[in-house]
Amino acid sequence: MSQLERLTGAILEAAFVEVEASGRHVHLTKADALALFGHGLTEDRPLSQPGQYVCRERVTLIGPQGRLEHVAVLGPERPASQVEISRTDARTLGVRAPVRLSGDTKGTPGIRLAGDRGEVALSEGVLIARRHIHMTPQAAARYGVGEGDEVRVRCLSARPLVLEGVAVRVSGQFANRVHIDYDEANACGHQKGDLGVILRG
Amino acid sequence: MSQLERLTGAILEAAFVEVEASGRHVHLTKADALALFGHGLTEDRPLSQPGQYVCRERVTLIGPQGRLEHVAVLGPERPASQVEISRTDARTLGVRAPVRLSGDTKGTPGIRLAGDRGEVALSEGVLIARRHIHMTPQAAARYGVGEGDEVRVRCLSARPLVLEGVAVRVSGQFANRVHIDYDEANACGHQKGDLGVILRG
Repeated sequence: MSQLERLTGAILEAAFVEVEASGRHVHLTKADALALFGHGLTEDRPLSQPGQYVCRERVTLIGPQGRLEHVAVLGPERPASQVEISRTDARTLGVRAPVRLSGDTKGTPGIRLAGDRGEVALSEGVLIARRHIHMTPQAAARYGVGEGDEVRVRCLSARPLVLEGVAVRVSGQFANRVHIDYDEANACGHQKGDLGVILRG
Repeated sequence: MSQLERLTGAILEAAFVEVEASGRHVHLTKADALALFGHGLTEDRPLSQPGQYVCRERVTLIGPQGRLEHVAVLGPERPASQVEISRTDARTLGVRAPVRLSGDTKGTPGIRLAGDRGEVALSEGVLIARRHIHMTPQAAARYGVGEGDEVRVRCLSARPLVLEGVAVRVSGQFANRVHIDYDEANACGHQKGDLGVILRG
């Protein structure tokens, strides 16, 4: 890499952040994975966040009004199973899912999951993922923000808009990425690789 | 109405504009309505824009990848038939619909429509409605904008965001309303009656 390429890379990284659209997906406990598939989760391909991956396994979500098939399972296994859907999906399934940060499942509705070897009934865990930004401590310091803060993000996409109240999550394990759901992705005309600008104030 | 109520109403109208979500719908020519239903369009209930209404008639959209049933037909009849869907719908149907203003159908894909009496194959007319704002000449003068201009609109909804590039449409026949599609409505957590603020610059 030339000096110019390194400099250009650093400038791009300081000015922009990649926006990624998260499709509907589930996280599973080891026990739920066993019940659904007869074995633990197996990796298909890595995600942008280090250590996270899409699994070979798929599930069907079974709601009171409808079902969604072939839904992605993300690994590794977690301490609690969780289902992340869009508001469009919530309507299809007939569940009243609130907008929450991942992991904040208290009081969220449950749903039935079906795998190729069995079914699991979750008593809670269905949410619409709140828009958020993963940041390294270095990036957070550069922007003067910390875990739990909010920023605005201007999406430089085909149907531009500014997302407000984007939750900041900071970890040395993260890659810098804005995560939005498919309703938000469709609303801003998102294409893979689209960039955003973090706005302050 | 008291003087205070009149004053409050005037202040609200000057500061805010109602945001409405438009579901997928079709506009039909007289000939296409006849082919689909065996008669002209009949009114079910009025829309917020004066003279516009939802019809009793419904159609099925038949795309190469899927179909959407029970789709609203809006009246009155128009000189050209047109199908307005979301990007989510476009994926379901398998059509590559561009984002366009209503009426700008040149080069858009076609689709098949089915009514209770027949089918029609449109050679073009499928689009994703570009976000827009209907304004009276009085409102446009107040904001210093005219037909074809763009404004930004901050949606004061559950998942707030700022829509950029909102096309201004001005007519003495209009009621002041921002129109967004269901992807945009879901992205901002829209509820019926939610207001927006027009931003300048």
